[in-house]
Amino acid sequence: MENQIRSNNKILKFENGSLQEKEDQIVTEFPLTVMLNGSEFATMVCTPKNLEELIFGFLASEGVIRFHDDVKELHIDESKGFAYVETAKEIPVSQQFYSKRFIGSCCGKSRQFYFYNDAKTAKTSTSKITLTPQQCILFMKALQDNSVVFQETGGVHNAALFSPDGMIVNRTDIGRHNALDKILGYCVQNRIPVQDKIIAFSGRISSEVLLKAAKIGVGIILSKSAPTDLAIKLADDLNITAVGFIRGNSFNVYSHTERIIATRASREDVK
Amino acid sequence: MENQIRSNNKILKFENGSLQEKEDQIVTEFPLTVMLNGSEFATMVCTPKNLEELIFGFLASEGVIRFHDDVKELHIDESKGFAYVETAKEIPVSQQFYSKRFIGSCCGKSRQFYFYNDAKTAKTSTSKITLTPQQCILFMKALQDNSVVFQETGGVHNAALFSPDGMIVNRTDIGRHNALDKILGYCVQNRIPVQDKIIAFSGRISSEVLLKAAKIGVGIILSKSAPTDLAIKLADDLNITAVGFIRGNSFNVYSHTERIIATRASREDVK
Repeated sequence: MENQIRSNNKILKFENGSLQEKEDQIVTEFPLTVMLNGSEFATMVCTPKNLEELIFGFLASEGVIRFHDDVKELHIDESKGFAYVETAKEIPVSQQFYSKRFIGSCCGKSRQFYFYNDAKTAKTSTSKITLTPQQCILFMKALQDNSVVFQETGGVHNAALFSPDGMIVNRTDIGRHNALDKILGYCVQNRIPVQDKIIAFSGRISSEVLLKAAKIGVGIILSKSAPTDLAIKLADDLNITAVGFIRGNSFNVYSHTERIIATRASREDVK
Repeated sequence: MENQIRSNNKILKFENGSLQEKEDQIVTEFPLTVMLNGSEFATMVCTPKNLEELIFGFLASEGVIRFHDDVKELHIDESKGFAYVETAKEIPVSQQFYSKRFIGSCCGKSRQFYFYNDAKTAKTSTSKITLTPQQCILFMKALQDNSVVFQETGGVHNAALFSPDGMIVNRTDIGRHNALDKILGYCVQNRIPVQDKIIAFSGRISSEVLLKAAKIGVGIILSKSAPTDLAIKLADDLNITAVGFIRGNSFNVYSHTERIIATRASREDVK
């Protein structure tokens, strides 16, 4: 049985000065608890689609697994909202470990991590990829054109993985991190190299979103929204190009601007 | 020393077909770790303003405190990002307790809680308050008119507390929950009765946002965005009126519609 990602609800609509009963589509919010080797690990609230990818991506993002084969068994009980994961090797770290604040030895100077597992799993990008301004704009448009659920119900985030040639996969979730975890899970499950890829994301570039991009391993993140100062600092440190406010024919580059290259030809295209 | 809530950054801007260096305002994302009676309790990432309210609201929302006097001492070290809280009474619950999934005894029938502490602290509203459609629209407009940081940097959520007579307090944060926790903290610190009040919120009504409204204790939540199905179920159960998609002169009422009353006079106002 697969859960629905939206449902019809009766609502009271106010328009043209009067209240009337109508039907409206509401986006589903699904609690999913991850049981890791028999212990409760975490509960996330998500859109019930591509749940295997979500679990793989979440565990990779938390530093619990690195490769597809690190998961020996995965069983999802969708009716109850539980995922049972068995890893190939024992997990040495205690649960307490996660979400403990990380204080670097050179406080205030280097990496801006605040959680220990982020410091462990976020990678410095070695990507040599470059994009033209037109590619940035086209990729964001492609992400938005694919966002069917959002257009109907106004309640989800979208993320997509691109190569310079175009979109590889796009995923949707009511949780911003989940959409990115599904992309990471897709890459882990399908053994896709990510160094030469680009992430496009519908939401703001917060430090958590930037860290997800670093954990996925891409060199460029595109967004239609704003970044935070902490996200920009992390992007500087982790060698990631953060591009925000991609709207119409303009955008801002906040870090490692060397990856966005305006050729003379591309400038003429836009004019 | 108070931290800045935004800063100027050099960016590379693409517009009118060319890339140029500019200055732009970036919103601050500030990690704050709460030390509760000497132990690390949680780290949140927030906008560094109204931090005392945030701590009071967060602890009340998590069920750690109920009243202002439950906090014996609060000291915030803004330069390091730590808040030291001592409670008047010992906290009997272990830290593990929080974020454990809550499975109700009548599974699938009643309350849709998925965390134990939510089931403990979310209150069923006994509010008898009603609003006209015009008040819903005016309150959302007042929230947006007050959202200065958002207008400048495009990166924060806003929440405000209203009585039927108008706005009492509004708060801003990069974290959706933090904005609501600051409102709750304001109410706890200033001993403000909330039963006859209304929350207006800039973001989506997720289950977490709805639960925050229930913890604050209001009977009506207004939003310019969509609710999720789980939020609507919780609103049904907790006797809260959820109003979404307040845009221009229209909106949708998703639960307990009896609190939104179109008088003949008010209908004529709009036409």
